[in-house]
Amino acid sequence: MNPLTQIQCAQQDLISPAMREVAEQEHLPPEHLRDLVARGRVVIPANPRHASLRPIGIGRALRTKINANIGNSASSGGPETELEKLACAIRYGADTVMDLSTGGCLEAIRAHILAHSPVPVGTVPIYEALAKLDDPLDLSIERLLEVIAAQAEQGVDFMTLHAGILREHLPAARQRLTGIVSRGGSALALWMDRHGRQNPIFEHFDRVLDICRAHDVTISLGDGLRPGCLADASDDAQFAELRVLGDLVRRCRAAGVQAMVEGPGHVPLHEIEPNMRAEREICDDAPFYILGPIVTDCAPGYDHITAAIGGALGALHGAAMLCYVTPREHLGWPTLEDVRQGVIAFRIAAHAADVAAGRPGARDRDDAVSRARAAFDWESQFRLALDPERARTMHAESSSAHPATGEPCCTMCGPRFCALRISRDWKQSAK
Amino acid sequence: MNPLTQIQCAQQDLISPAMREVAEQEHLPPEHLRDLVARGRVVIPANPRHASLRPIGIGRALRTKINANIGNSASSGGPETELEKLACAIRYGADTVMDLSTGGCLEAIRAHILAHSPVPVGTVPIYEALAKLDDPLDLSIERLLEVIAAQAEQGVDFMTLHAGILREHLPAARQRLTGIVSRGGSALALWMDRHGRQNPIFEHFDRVLDICRAHDVTISLGDGLRPGCLADASDDAQFAELRVLGDLVRRCRAAGVQAMVEGPGHVPLHEIEPNMRAEREICDDAPFYILGPIVTDCAPGYDHITAAIGGALGALHGAAMLCYVTPREHLGWPTLEDVRQGVIAFRIAAHAADVAAGRPGARDRDDAVSRARAAFDWESQFRLALDPERARTMHAESSSAHPATGEPCCTMCGPRFCALRISRDWKQSAK
Repeated sequence: MNPLTQIQCAQQDLISPAMREVAEQEHLPPEHLRDLVARGRVVIPANPRHASLRPIGIGRALRTKINANIGNSASSGGPETELEKLACAIRYGADTVMDLSTGGCLEAIRAHILAHSPVPVGTVPIYEALAKLDDPLDLSIERLLEVIAAQAEQGVDFMTLHAGILREHLPAARQRLTGIVSRGGSALALWMDRHGRQNPIFEHFDRVLDICRAHDVTISLGDGLRPGCLADASDDAQFAELRVLGDLVRRCRAAGVQAMVEGPGHVPLHEIEPNMRAEREICDDAPFYILGPIVTDCAPGYDHITAAIGGALGALHGAAMLCYVTPREHLGWPTLEDVRQGVIAFRIAAHAADVAAGRPGARDRDDAVSRARAAFDWESQFRLALDPERARTMHAESSSAHPATGEPCCTMCGPRFCALRISRDWKQSAK
Repeated sequence: MNPLTQIQCAQQDLISPAMREVAEQEHLPPEHLRDLVARGRVVIPANPRHASLRPIGIGRALRTKINANIGNSASSGGPETELEKLACAIRYGADTVMDLSTGGCLEAIRAHILAHSPVPVGTVPIYEALAKLDDPLDLSIERLLEVIAAQAEQGVDFMTLHAGILREHLPAARQRLTGIVSRGGSALALWMDRHGRQNPIFEHFDRVLDICRAHDVTISLGDGLRPGCLADASDDAQFAELRVLGDLVRRCRAAGVQAMVEGPGHVPLHEIEPNMRAEREICDDAPFYILGPIVTDCAPGYDHITAAIGGALGALHGAAMLCYVTPREHLGWPTLEDVRQGVIAFRIAAHAADVAAGRPGARDRDDAVSRARAAFDWESQFRLALDPERARTMHAESSSAHPATGEPCCTMCGPRFCALRISRDWKQSAK
């Protein structure tokens, strides 16, 4: 017999070791965390077969989490490259990673990542199901369930499943400027249209639930109809799918399966708060896991910034986890340096929201940096920085010798105009 | 006799050529723009001696503007370097520049910048006034007025003057974690304390107004007490100064001098909207010109991102102009590449807010990029990007040959998983 899932434990008033660990990380009483898990407000993606995992919780009441997508595409990286990306993502603060490999060696790469990752690992099983087919129309529910089961047995902690995109949503999506930009969503749309049948993941959702319950895989309900540009944001297709996701959240919880909900994507700044509120209402406050969102379409090469702006605002208004976007979004598959840039931009966004939410201790690091600044303690400032190397390098590049004393001197204000130094003199002298 | 200032013209119901030009840029009837100028809701910093200027308007009702700080410090750059920074800032979309030089050759650098800049040029006259002194305590109002007059005669369009930091504010500022981080503010605080006298710019503000009116220099009321870290944000010192700035705005308007108000700085995400609202109320909706704001202190090396997040939210809630922050903030004086990174990050922030505000035509560029994406028209996507070179380079680095056709193929999804291609097939086939 399989062990209970986290939500089943919580529903039976049991506090699992994972709950205890997460409660400690989040400075919450374990009983309170258990209640949040029982009600589906927090998920703890922790497949028992993922031996190297240190569990974390995802939910609006907790510290904002960030996910980094890694994995290869047809023209890039094998297992070694992906382990480098994993190490980089974790080093700079990713809370979860998703292995989105589609370029071959899928099982081997996933096995490597699972063996080395202390953070929850997510996948999109339809990628593997499609990878072995010549034609996406040959996809079958049996093939997909096989992949889900195999990945669950391998130890995957959470899986994106596009169960909410339905045949009846497609006419609305056809009106869009950029159509369907989710890979799983577009493949399913084509499949439904050509076969004249309903989404097989939706139709066979109970069988999906059985597998996920058996391995405590958290379902991340994918938004196959997420908008791919500002013009398509918050349209009928997006919200029709979200209502289905809300129903599926309730089915997951009733089945003892943990569930979170994926969200957009591309959203103008003023629509972010309403989007967060809508998900909370429609999906009964299931943890909302959003991609960015990107707030302008015209900055390819800088979408880590366009998306960090949206992500910060999303987290401020209740998103539980932010999927990073890298500078190479819309242009190519991320490199190792892109992973670093993406993770740091999203750590900034998540942290800024946590400070604003007043989470216990969230601002301690900021205050420590500021104290170091006021004391001209550069070493502490570097050590406390999200990216110590970059801070140290930039400062070193910019330093020059003080013309009078020969001491190293910051170029920001030059030797005579340093506001902090004048301010310190003023504070010390004029008591 | 001097010509009328823009606000004097507008108060007399006259529409100046500059107002006409700004109204056209902003898609507003000239009469409406004139009313905004008359009421001080819009400023048009346009010193008649700045011959190469193409006027722009700054105000909450207009497109959000961004300012790039250039200028040398003691250890960097002469006139040539600064002209390179000017060209770079304008190329990537700066609406104004401030010459913050403190490192020598001040007049020559300013003359070069004014001769070449089509955008309004701002300065902080106290820097030049202090530069020639051995001791900041030797500062005098006569010296400062001389500098203001000389710069006004040279053609400077707007000047930061720290007229609002008063002796009575200093006890509150002394409690702060990072004290006073404005260079002008810290020098004035030291001066006031040591001499036991009031802020000379405040005391002699009428004489400042006479000079500024004579040359239609727009006064940018500096926030010498802007917070330098999250811990000091929105404190008594900041708001005490803001109330003085509100009074000074009214005095400027009554004297026929254009005025805007400078704002923070470092502000946690949730305090940005209240800060914008407070300025609007206290300063009678004078254009608010904010620095960032930075929303977390712990990301030195990435403060263009921490500040673009704050800036986007600030502009969404009514800031009229955003002063950029570069990646080198807190670490050193910006290089040419830092200027580029800072301007682009802030163009993103300002544009995202303009889209959200529904300004006429604001989203056209986004939609054009999105149409190009859906059509696989890479060239148009690059051309329309905020940084075409970077988008083109990143895409080229990431391209690979399609294994079957040999055609160039984007690595984002690889040859077989392209959501846009599948989506296009689906849209075309299944009518």
